[in-house]
Amino acid sequence: MADDGGGTLQDLGEFALIDRITADLPPAPGVIVGPGDDTAVVFSADGLVAVTCDLLVEGTHFRRDWSTPIDIGRRAAAASLADVAAMGGVATSLVVGFGAPGDLPAAWAVSCASGIREEAALVGAVLVGGDVVQSPQVVISVTALGDLQGHSPVLRSGARTGDVVAIAGRFGWAAAGLALLSRGFRSPKALVDAHRFPLPPYAAGPAAAAAGATSMIDVSDGLVADALHIATASGVVVELDTAGWEVPEPMQAAAAAYNVDPREWMLTGGDDHALLATFPAGAALPDGFTVIGSVGEGDPSVVVDGVPRGPEDGHRHFG
Amino acid sequence: MADDGGGTLQDLGEFALIDRITADLPPAPGVIVGPGDDTAVVFSADGLVAVTCDLLVEGTHFRRDWSTPIDIGRRAAAASLADVAAMGGVATSLVVGFGAPGDLPAAWAVSCASGIREEAALVGAVLVGGDVVQSPQVVISVTALGDLQGHSPVLRSGARTGDVVAIAGRFGWAAAGLALLSRGFRSPKALVDAHRFPLPPYAAGPAAAAAGATSMIDVSDGLVADALHIATASGVVVELDTAGWEVPEPMQAAAAAYNVDPREWMLTGGDDHALLATFPAGAALPDGFTVIGSVGEGDPSVVVDGVPRGPEDGHRHFG
Repeated sequence: MADDGGGTLQDLGEFALIDRITADLPPAPGVIVGPGDDTAVVFSADGLVAVTCDLLVEGTHFRRDWSTPIDIGRRAAAASLADVAAMGGVATSLVVGFGAPGDLPAAWAVSCASGIREEAALVGAVLVGGDVVQSPQVVISVTALGDLQGHSPVLRSGARTGDVVAIAGRFGWAAAGLALLSRGFRSPKALVDAHRFPLPPYAAGPAAAAAGATSMIDVSDGLVADALHIATASGVVVELDTAGWEVPEPMQAAAAAYNVDPREWMLTGGDDHALLATFPAGAALPDGFTVIGSVGEGDPSVVVDGVPRGPEDGHRHFG
Repeated sequence: MADDGGGTLQDLGEFALIDRITADLPPAPGVIVGPGDDTAVVFSADGLVAVTCDLLVEGTHFRRDWSTPIDIGRRAAAASLADVAAMGGVATSLVVGFGAPGDLPAAWAVSCASGIREEAALVGAVLVGGDVVQSPQVVISVTALGDLQGHSPVLRSGARTGDVVAIAGRFGWAAAGLALLSRGFRSPKALVDAHRFPLPPYAAGPAAAAAGATSMIDVSDGLVADALHIATASGVVVELDTAGWEVPEPMQAAAAAYNVDPREWMLTGGDDHALLATFPAGAALPDGFTVIGSVGEGDPSVVVDGVPRGPEDGHRHFG
């Protein structure tokens, strides 16, 4: 993308900013009309389109003095891209609403858009449209459209008694990173980086759909909180057994140093966008999934090592 | 929708708010998965999906002390629904990102959502998903998905020398209403109401596509400014001839009272979401369209009564 020249959004203007954000977009076979018209037009071979929107607001979800614009762009895109993966789909396109004050450096906006585009490129999705407006804070809305590749969508409501509960991707890493940062530490770098932006296991979503996953959700509020969404939608008990969990090495070290139980980060930390799924007992799990529990009968709830855990074990909105 | 009980968003909480906003949604044949899962899933018979996003921010696009939440919801939805119409499509579904402070009355949020749902219902579109987050100001992002009903999308770039230029819907009304309000007047009511929320001629969009429109755009920044988008994308001169224009009665009265030329409101006022289109000479125009000019050869520009007009004749973003 072109150099910003050191100016602000007000200097650059809406249309020049859009030109920079959408410059050199890669060709994408499913995009019939890209940015620059009243709407984009995308194509889905089976006619089904998964669609989801996430809204990130400065001060609530990020701070400009704590995160780089690229990291913020990656996080904003990852939230929606992971939702598509959690339905068993592959995101194909993004539309982005971007609000910012007129005195925001144009370079910040362009870098943030680069972060969105880089994260989208991980799954082959492209930016197809959006809106740029003035706002007192930076506001980023990312809508992702996705392709289910001929599979039925994997809902939250399909878990059945006797299924195994499995997870793909990191969980607890972002929470551990935040705990470190809030105590003034900058290491272990792997954990701090996990708080900067997630590494969702995008490919595990469609793989789970192909392997017959009965339910799936992306872990954004915390494992217990999101497992409870599956339990409630499916009318089952999600039983997690932490005894066999392998605690990743950087989390072991950090937990030992601060004398905390790393499993609490893993149970309650959000923002890693792991994929939590249920599979019929005996199903061959796709690469990346590890069994962490089973599905039982009873009033919808989440039980960890035999002890019920409530919805308070996760991120609270308007809290 | 249920009564709010007089509480705030913080009292109600995210999930209860979403339950109220999405209560009693009408059945919609193209919606395979509605709100409540990781993504919605919608169906398009021809596989093509028009998609567009508009972001409205309190203080930039509306004030809570000047507009009702229903009006703001209608305006937010209309911006995206009109974009779909301007491609020749019919909007089928909306995903909405809603940000608000925790002390916002829950009733305000529920009414705003009602406004969005009511506007969507005008074209048969339904709310299928979204995101609710905390934000210092009210922020509303509306993404509309639309069906092109087997037609090719009507782009901005298809206008050809010799085409006629035609418009459907009101233009200048919202600007006249704003001029009245800013002088402290509350009438004529028709103009003041036009500033509260637009009445886009949604059905004229697909009708224009079916009638062979060569280009189309929705007038959101102002007639001259948006005509310039067609001129630039198509490489043509858009020639507008105001001599034959009929100035609507309420605008005549207001203009006479304030000693202004009502045609300036019609040329530069945005926010009415009229549909500006070009048609081959001799084409039978669909109901609602009136010829206001023609397409000529030359460097891309807009000429009004023989005088070139620039892009400054419209709404400036980051201005």
